[in-house]
Amino acid sequence: MRVEIWSDIACPWCYIGKARFAEGLSRFEHRDEVEVVFRSFELDPRGAKGVTAPVVEMLAKKYGRTLDEARGMEEHVAATARAEGLAYSTEGRLHGNTFDIHRLLHLAAARGRQEELLDLAFRANFADGAGVYDHGTLLRLAVEAGLDEAEAREVLADDSAYADAVRADEREAAELGANAVPFFVLDRRYGISGGQPAEVFTQALQQAWAGREVPEVSPAGDACEPDGACAVPERS
Amino acid sequence: MRVEIWSDIACPWCYIGKARFAEGLSRFEHRDEVEVVFRSFELDPRGAKGVTAPVVEMLAKKYGRTLDEARGMEEHVAATARAEGLAYSTEGRLHGNTFDIHRLLHLAAARGRQEELLDLAFRANFADGAGVYDHGTLLRLAVEAGLDEAEAREVLADDSAYADAVRADEREAAELGANAVPFFVLDRRYGISGGQPAEVFTQALQQAWAGREVPEVSPAGDACEPDGACAVPERS
Repeated sequence: MRVEIWSDIACPWCYIGKARFAEGLSRFEHRDEVEVVFRSFELDPRGAKGVTAPVVEMLAKKYGRTLDEARGMEEHVAATARAEGLAYSTEGRLHGNTFDIHRLLHLAAARGRQEELLDLAFRANFADGAGVYDHGTLLRLAVEAGLDEAEAREVLADDSAYADAVRADEREAAELGANAVPFFVLDRRYGISGGQPAEVFTQALQQAWAGREVPEVSPAGDACEPDGACAVPERS
Repeated sequence: MRVEIWSDIACPWCYIGKARFAEGLSRFEHRDEVEVVFRSFELDPRGAKGVTAPVVEMLAKKYGRTLDEARGMEEHVAATARAEGLAYSTEGRLHGNTFDIHRLLHLAAARGRQEELLDLAFRANFADGAGVYDHGTLLRLAVEAGLDEAEAREVLADDSAYADAVRADEREAAELGANAVPFFVLDRRYGISGGQPAEVFTQALQQAWAGREVPEVSPAGDACEPDGACAVPERS
């Protein structure tokens, strides 16, 4: 089975949802036959690159709250994250454009290091106050994830590198009906929206597993069966 | 959209079906958004490695026909292949165990050269009379496909390299309901069995595309929407 997870590094429910999904997956008996792929979704695609603002200011503005109330909102998310065993610092977290870390995550996918980089990026953004917005930090994370430094530097320097891959992921999210993240898709058959409790993921995995036989859309054509028996064309 | 194609190199309908699928895909308007992945399926997994027999002898035995009749069967398949623009030689084609070429195809997938190697392997087996059964030929094909020679040699020498990947593909085929090849799976939602005419593939691609929105299996959980609006936890 294949699970695709759309998320943004700037999304705390993605950070929390990833941990809850991992917990749900660990309780699923066929977990060793599940391939997990991470896909790009930018919460703020129109935000200027490299321009950041404190998250609490962004929250206060967006929800029409005071800075203290916005801080309270962050504290609530932090408490939820900590309940999942995730480090979360509410001090000085920044909000900004995540296009470059998504491009880098596609390079990491091509090199078999995607989840390593994703975990480091979440941690940098939510636990370490490092953010994922300046190239120095991104390069450090890339190297820590096992990527080649020169290659990562090249991708960061070239705005077009993996840009199409990020946009293709975002287009696919829209086509599949995902308009918020995290969004989990099981075998392109079932969707799960949001950072659900672990048991919701386990149940969905079981449901998708049970119904995975694919119906055929047309009568079978000429084919070969095990032991080498191939359909023989009709003699004319 | 993602299309997975289960096939065996020893299967002429897989060789023909791949060309027909490519033709059907080329007529599909969203072809640039289709990712194609090739998966392993052995027709003769119990055949001893390195032991081969002429295909016509195998066919005669399997169908209880004379060698001449078996040759006629091969000629019919060859004519079908040639009608698709594929080279096909009926002289001296061998049948055998394809585990090693499947292992090598998984290495090629990891290096982004899977389809290159698959096309070369089909050609070696059906057009050039080279077969895909001895390591010398396999190594030559691997290098021609752009793989590193030392790495390919290592994989061939180590029976366990990518063995689990081949078996996982075969287990998945069984779970999805595929018991003959070629077998095409569109977004894990629709199956197509056999080397169908190109228009069957085009229609199936259109049908799968139209119905690709994934139903959600549970009410949405906490999530972040574009422009940074994240669900705020209920205050206790």
